[in-house]
Amino acid sequence: MPMDEFDLIAHYLTPLAANKAARGLADDAAVFEIPEGYQGVVSTDALVSGVHFPEAASGDIVAQRALGSALSDLAAMGATPTGCLLTWGIGPDWDSAFFDQFAAALGAGLDTYKVALWGGDTVRAPTPFISVCVHGIGRKSDLLSRSGARAGDAVYVSGTIGDGFLGLQDFATGANGAARAAYERPVPQLALGQALAGVASACIDVSDGLAGDLDHICRASGVAMEIEASAVPLSAAGVAYVQDAAGLQTLVTGGDDYQLAFSVSADNAGKLDAIARTANVALTRIGTVIGTPRQSPTEAFSARFVDADGGQMRLEKRGYTHF
Amino acid sequence: MPMDEFDLIAHYLTPLAANKAARGLADDAAVFEIPEGYQGVVSTDALVSGVHFPEAASGDIVAQRALGSALSDLAAMGATPTGCLLTWGIGPDWDSAFFDQFAAALGAGLDTYKVALWGGDTVRAPTPFISVCVHGIGRKSDLLSRSGARAGDAVYVSGTIGDGFLGLQDFATGANGAARAAYERPVPQLALGQALAGVASACIDVSDGLAGDLDHICRASGVAMEIEASAVPLSAAGVAYVQDAAGLQTLVTGGDDYQLAFSVSADNAGKLDAIARTANVALTRIGTVIGTPRQSPTEAFSARFVDADGGQMRLEKRGYTHF
Repeated sequence: MPMDEFDLIAHYLTPLAANKAARGLADDAAVFEIPEGYQGVVSTDALVSGVHFPEAASGDIVAQRALGSALSDLAAMGATPTGCLLTWGIGPDWDSAFFDQFAAALGAGLDTYKVALWGGDTVRAPTPFISVCVHGIGRKSDLLSRSGARAGDAVYVSGTIGDGFLGLQDFATGANGAARAAYERPVPQLALGQALAGVASACIDVSDGLAGDLDHICRASGVAMEIEASAVPLSAAGVAYVQDAAGLQTLVTGGDDYQLAFSVSADNAGKLDAIARTANVALTRIGTVIGTPRQSPTEAFSARFVDADGGQMRLEKRGYTHF
Repeated sequence: MPMDEFDLIAHYLTPLAANKAARGLADDAAVFEIPEGYQGVVSTDALVSGVHFPEAASGDIVAQRALGSALSDLAAMGATPTGCLLTWGIGPDWDSAFFDQFAAALGAGLDTYKVALWGGDTVRAPTPFISVCVHGIGRKSDLLSRSGARAGDAVYVSGTIGDGFLGLQDFATGANGAARAAYERPVPQLALGQALAGVASACIDVSDGLAGDLDHICRASGVAMEIEASAVPLSAAGVAYVQDAAGLQTLVTGGDDYQLAFSVSADNAGKLDAIARTANVALTRIGTVIGTPRQSPTEAFSARFVDADGGQMRLEKRGYTHF
């Protein structure tokens, strides 16, 4: 007899939900507390088969990408994860091998990032999907937003940009390139985000593409940015890919990086060396926040990528969009 | 030019998210607070096109069912809703008429139930889906669970059972039956749940089918129940449908009722009249919690439906399952 959703939950998820809030996955909802002086932070991220991951992706990759991308949003807020809800839209082709890999990788991720499985929903879906709703906490005064960037602030990005895109290419072609792990197992920059809380003036995680994500900060903050294209940090795989300007344009709009891009005032820039050591990730200055006239058209709130000749790099698109 | 997901969010969702936690839908996550002395309660519910609603369902019906079924889980906990996250898996056939109806009905529901739209995720999906993650609060000592039913407690259900099932039939056949509204616009029993907090010994919302949902209480509480089949409250449409025992079996396993089923001790049963008036919903006693030997097999933790002759009603299935 095939497992129904209650069997699936009991077999794969209940063992991962040995925490008080989850109530053994046996109630209608999870119950959680927030320590005094803290605020709750919540974000949800859905990955659809054939859209956000290849239909042939194995369960471990789907779990790692779902949890990693969701936690990356908490990292961008400077929050500390507490618990999550998992929605499993189960497709007709998912078999026990998929479930085994999924549950093992999910369990490992929950351990690594110290996030409890609180609950969720398991449904049948002709097109499979996974949605992870992550909760965290942070001190009110320290939580990061996209709206605090000010003219004169420096713009930084963590790690390297473009590996998520290159890793997806490797995955799709079956190549075993150096960037593949960045796609298969994105690492949310939680320690960095927490260290930047109260320090960065604005922050975002690079999920849709560096250019488009910096634009989000610009719009929310009412500023523009000048980004030095040649300063964007690349891995060896990225350097190899960038043989011409078009290559770099692809990497800064490719998305799936799950690095943090942030702005920091001159007063706080001195703290970044220690933060980079604490979070064990490279931080690279890539540009500067510049002001815009008050009555600017919407498109003025944007990050301009300037190439080595001082000219503005033309970006056909700014990042990943669904439609 | 068709709208991308940012346009869709700005046009349809941002106007509904004028609350502090949502941060204008312009951050990576929502930020919320829980008053001192309260706990957070969170539940998520996904509805998939062709599985949980007909592919041809209009936007208002999808929104009403998504919000109603999600809030019903908070009702079962006795919680008071605060905010929600909406995940929109947008299919190729959804057009502006669908979005208009969806957003109008969602906005009306958020107003009615006093729940704020905090955020969410908008993605493309070959098979459309909607997932609503609802948050609420409740006092620790009062929150309801499925695990407190004790031998001798009375078993009650609110409203009438079977109208969700009959309403779906009407919807599918195009008939305009009396039960249709129960399917198209399920009403979460929030006021009832809040009034039962600290009074009921166990509670669940009837979403998968009365029999199967009572079984959940039995398993979580380690008890059984004897339910008088003829006592199950039916609407006029339900009475008309139940011409034989098979009809009643269908209604008590049909699901989509979004009524509350709960147990209450003899000490607290006297409070139910006042609670029914406060919540403006009929409460009907349908049976009694009975004990089971400690070493019972799992199937002993079950609700037995007894018919007029005192015989046990045979239920082929206990409720809706996905697989």
